[in-house]
Amino acid sequence: MPADAADRSDPATGSTTGTGPLAILAGAGELPKVIADEVARTGRPIFAVEVDGETDCDLSAYPRTRLPIGAAGRLKTVLMEHGCRDVLMAGSFRRPRFSEIEWNMGTVRALSSIMRLKVGGDDAVVNGVVHIFESEGFRIVGPREVVPRLVAPQGTIGRLRPGKKARSDIALGLSAIGRMGPLDIGQAVIVLAGRIVAVEAAEGTDSMIARCAQLRDNGRIAAPPPSGVLVKAMKPGQELRLDMPVVGLDTVRGAAAAGLEGIAIEAGKVLLPRIEEVGAAADDAGLFIVGVDLGDRTGRPE
Amino acid sequence: MPADAADRSDPATGSTTGTGPLAILAGAGELPKVIADEVARTGRPIFAVEVDGETDCDLSAYPRTRLPIGAAGRLKTVLMEHGCRDVLMAGSFRRPRFSEIEWNMGTVRALSSIMRLKVGGDDAVVNGVVHIFESEGFRIVGPREVVPRLVAPQGTIGRLRPGKKARSDIALGLSAIGRMGPLDIGQAVIVLAGRIVAVEAAEGTDSMIARCAQLRDNGRIAAPPPSGVLVKAMKPGQELRLDMPVVGLDTVRGAAAAGLEGIAIEAGKVLLPRIEEVGAAADDAGLFIVGVDLGDRTGRPE
Repeated sequence: MPADAADRSDPATGSTTGTGPLAILAGAGELPKVIADEVARTGRPIFAVEVDGETDCDLSAYPRTRLPIGAAGRLKTVLMEHGCRDVLMAGSFRRPRFSEIEWNMGTVRALSSIMRLKVGGDDAVVNGVVHIFESEGFRIVGPREVVPRLVAPQGTIGRLRPGKKARSDIALGLSAIGRMGPLDIGQAVIVLAGRIVAVEAAEGTDSMIARCAQLRDNGRIAAPPPSGVLVKAMKPGQELRLDMPVVGLDTVRGAAAAGLEGIAIEAGKVLLPRIEEVGAAADDAGLFIVGVDLGDRTGRPE
Repeated sequence: MPADAADRSDPATGSTTGTGPLAILAGAGELPKVIADEVARTGRPIFAVEVDGETDCDLSAYPRTRLPIGAAGRLKTVLMEHGCRDVLMAGSFRRPRFSEIEWNMGTVRALSSIMRLKVGGDDAVVNGVVHIFESEGFRIVGPREVVPRLVAPQGTIGRLRPGKKARSDIALGLSAIGRMGPLDIGQAVIVLAGRIVAVEAAEGTDSMIARCAQLRDNGRIAAPPPSGVLVKAMKPGQELRLDMPVVGLDTVRGAAAAGLEGIAIEAGKVLLPRIEEVGAAADDAGLFIVGVDLGDRTGRPE
C-alpha cells in the first residue's frame, strides 16, 4: 500500500477490505445520509460525492464534492485525490442521458460496458457500473458489507404478524418475483387474496403502491382495506452491492395509505435503513412487516 | 329442437352452433355495441343485457333488459324467457362483491365455481363464469366465433412498420408475456430498448400506458419519444371466449400520448373492434401497429 493512502486511512478500520475513506455516491433520498452516519459511527472516514439534481439529503457533516451525473472522468480524479478505493452507491439515480457521459474516464475496456447501459434493463446498467469502476481500480462495496445493521432481519419487525391468508399471499409474491427475475422486472409485487394486483417495473415501489389506492377507487380491487400484501425481495441474480432493494418509512406510509394489510421483505437481502422507526410506523398504521428468510437464494458474489 | 326455440331463431343464421338470439352481456366501453352491430349485420337477432353501473354504450336498437351485477338468478330467467342459449360477454366488468351475488341461480355444482371467484386471479374468475353458465345449460360464445372480422390480422395494420430495434423489443415483450402467463398477469407490457418498463396486472392496459407518460416526466424513462412498444397478447391458456385482449382507439390514442413508437398485438388472439379507424389513428399519430402471428400458441378449446 502506498504511504499516502495509508496516511489517509483510519486506524479504527484496519480491515483488509476497508482502507481509506469510504466514498459515498449520493443519489436521491435519505439513504446516503443514513448510511454515511452509520459508517461514520464505526469510525471510518467518509467522502461524499453529491450529484447535481440527484442528491437531496444533507451531507454537510462530511468532506464532499459535487459533480454532474455522468462526469465519470472527474469522479475518478476526485476519488483518487481523496485516497478512496472503496465506493458505495446509495439512493436512487436516474439513468444519465448518453450526451451527459464524459468519455475521459472510459477506456476501451469500459466502453463496452457503457454501451450496454443504453440497451439493457436495470441489471445491465448495474453490470456496466460495476465493470467501469473495477476496470479503473476501484472496489464497489455494498450496504451488507459496511452497514450490516441496516439489513432486514428474519421475523416480525413490528408487533403484528401475518395471518394464514397473508402468508399464502406472501408465498405467491415471492414465487412470482423469482419467476420474473430473468425478465429484470418484479422486484416488488402486491398480492391480494391469491391474485397479483400490481407488478413493479420501471416505476419504482412507491409508485406501484400508490397505484393500489387508485385500483380500490375505481373498483378494480373490490376487497375492502386493510387487504393486500406488498412483497419485496431480491431479484434472482440481483447485484446487491449496487442495487439492493430498500424498504423505508415512505414504504410503510404508502402501504398504509393504499389500505394494505402488511409488508413482507426478504431477510438479508433488503435494506431497512430505519428499522426501529419502520416498526413503530407499521404498528401505528396497523400493518404487519415481516422478514422472510429464503436462505438458499444468493445474490451475486460480493 | 323445441318449436318455440326454432320459431325465435333466424333462418339466416342456421348454423348448428347459433340458434336463437345471441345474448350480449354488456360491460363498460363501446365493445358491446360494436359487437352487437356486427352480429346484427349478419342477420342474427340480439338480446342485450345491460348491467347497472357497467354498461355505458347505447344498445337501444336492440331488445334488452337491465339487471344489477351479480343478479345471476334473474339473468337465467330472462335469458330463458327470450330463448337465448348462446351468451357473449363483452366490455369490462368489475368483480361483483360477494354480497351482490344472488344465490338462486347457483346450484351445488356452481357454488364451488362462485367460491373460486373470491380467491383467484382473472383466470379463476373466468373459469368460474364459464362453469356457472354451462352448468345451467347455456353456451358461452366468443368474439372469434361470432365476429371473426373484428379479430386482429397478421401484418401491419396502418402504414408504418416496426424497425429492427422495435422488432427486437416486440420479441422480448411476447416472451415476457409467455413467461408471466402462469402468474395470471402481464397481458400487456411496454418494452423500450431491451428493457421492460411496465407490466400490466390489475390496472388495465390503458392505465399502464398512461403510466409511461409519467415515467418520462420523472426521468425514469430517459429515451426521448417516440420510443417504446406496447406489446399485447393472449396469456398462455387464456379463455378467449370471455376474456379476449382488446386494442381499440383509446389504446392508440393513449400510446401516442405516452410517446410510444408503436403497438404489437398477437394476430388471431386480440380483438380489434374498429380496425380501419385504428389503422388511421395510428397513421395520424405516427405509430406503427402490427399483428404478429405466434401460430403455435393456443387458447383454451372453444
